[in-house]
Amino acid sequence: MKIGVIQFEPLFGEVDRNLELAGSLIMKSDADLLVLPELFNTGYVFTSKEEAISLSEQIPQGRTTQMLCDVAKEKGIFIAGGLAEKGGNGIFNSSVLVSPDGYVGRYRKVHLFFEEKLWFDPGDEGFKVYDTGVCKVGIMICFDWFFPESMRALSLMGADIICHPSNLVMSFCQDAMKTRCLENHVFAITANRTGTESRGGKSLHFTGKSQITGPDGRVLFRAGETTEEAGIMEINVNEARSKKVNEYNDLFKDRRSDFYSILTESDR
Amino acid sequence: MKIGVIQFEPLFGEVDRNLELAGSLIMKSDADLLVLPELFNTGYVFTSKEEAISLSEQIPQGRTTQMLCDVAKEKGIFIAGGLAEKGGNGIFNSSVLVSPDGYVGRYRKVHLFFEEKLWFDPGDEGFKVYDTGVCKVGIMICFDWFFPESMRALSLMGADIICHPSNLVMSFCQDAMKTRCLENHVFAITANRTGTESRGGKSLHFTGKSQITGPDGRVLFRAGETTEEAGIMEINVNEARSKKVNEYNDLFKDRRSDFYSILTESDR
Repeated sequence: MKIGVIQFEPLFGEVDRNLELAGSLIMKSDADLLVLPELFNTGYVFTSKEEAISLSEQIPQGRTTQMLCDVAKEKGIFIAGGLAEKGGNGIFNSSVLVSPDGYVGRYRKVHLFFEEKLWFDPGDEGFKVYDTGVCKVGIMICFDWFFPESMRALSLMGADIICHPSNLVMSFCQDAMKTRCLENHVFAITANRTGTESRGGKSLHFTGKSQITGPDGRVLFRAGETTEEAGIMEINVNEARSKKVNEYNDLFKDRRSDFYSILTESDR
Repeated sequence: MKIGVIQFEPLFGEVDRNLELAGSLIMKSDADLLVLPELFNTGYVFTSKEEAISLSEQIPQGRTTQMLCDVAKEKGIFIAGGLAEKGGNGIFNSSVLVSPDGYVGRYRKVHLFFEEKLWFDPGDEGFKVYDTGVCKVGIMICFDWFFPESMRALSLMGADIICHPSNLVMSFCQDAMKTRCLENHVFAITANRTGTESRGGKSLHFTGKSQITGPDGRVLFRAGETTEEAGIMEINVNEARSKKVNEYNDLFKDRRSDFYSILTESDR
């Protein structure tokens, strides 16, 4: 199968323009599964909770999810991408997964970064894995990568491919994803954005270098720092199904969960 | 405080020579905490369980632990290093921690690599952290690094510094330790060995490049591939005590342990 990442610069609040650009980039890309950046429809640097509310949409009724469903149907592909979600119980930094048959599911970012904590509510649904029929897909968003538990949970749930919509402002993630993919023997598609957003006296620069990483920790594709581009790779998803390192070691069977209990103690 | 790593080539079965060489390297090194490689007293490529039994020693009664206690007392320092342990309930790939006042504690390797599974029993005591009075020290051995749970557990238990006796034969660890230290905001001392051991028709090459890594993921020291050397770094252990990434994010407080339960499910 072919998996791909779409990197571009969303402009803050220009939802029409961002959806149109994302849609045209998707239409030009030949892949079975494509990943768009975090908050690709709205931009990132919110200045108030009200602004986040006003730019958020219901999932799947909102127009961003509907646009993605439309192009997914037209192209016959799966797409994951990030948007601000107006939920019944809060405003979330979410990603949807859509298929040729319509909306599949959503992920609400569990580990919020920096001022996101002012605009969004922390994800309340945990991690989920979706079976596309060809592969199993897990979603995490940007800063989730910093917590090894995110990709570990998705991988233990059976994910072959981690879709990773991102708006990265630090320099660590791309190299760290080599370790993340290696330790879990999965593929990951990190879709970052480019450009600088300056609003309300704040300025954030997004670092591009969107990346597709293989289960052996190899970087299969890395985009430019500032380019608008799609990166597509042909992969054999079966490579993510075996967790064997050698004839004696299996990364999942060798886990010693009896000794990991401190990782899930809630009173820490 | 000063922390250091000692890298050399143990020769298989030549315990006298290995202890003498390790002792002389320790005596020449000016640090408060030193780490020696995995199985530094015996070498690595066992060819039978009987061989592992015959080269294993009781902890702390055996001569390797006693030698380490002697030099730790003479130098007034802490030392961690790996040896084959003859336990009441099995033969373990262990590491001891010794202090100027004598034996402190041991760690029995939890994730055995490759044919170690033929010679050793899997560690049955889990992860432990020891307070030296100046810093808190956790121990893991070699392949434990591959499982993010190892360093996560030690760090959540309060370790500032991870002592990591190793006999690395793969190329991934040194770069991965940058992510391990970054995700936990701790120091790590990876003490690798050098040389090639060929025994019983098998040959393993050990990759050197012992490494001291900082809580921001920076490599503070990296040894040569084939050199016999000690690497010593002055560190401020307080850097490992704050888990803050920025004014909104704390790597430990931001953990969402309610969503990590799959990591400790024992029926996987």
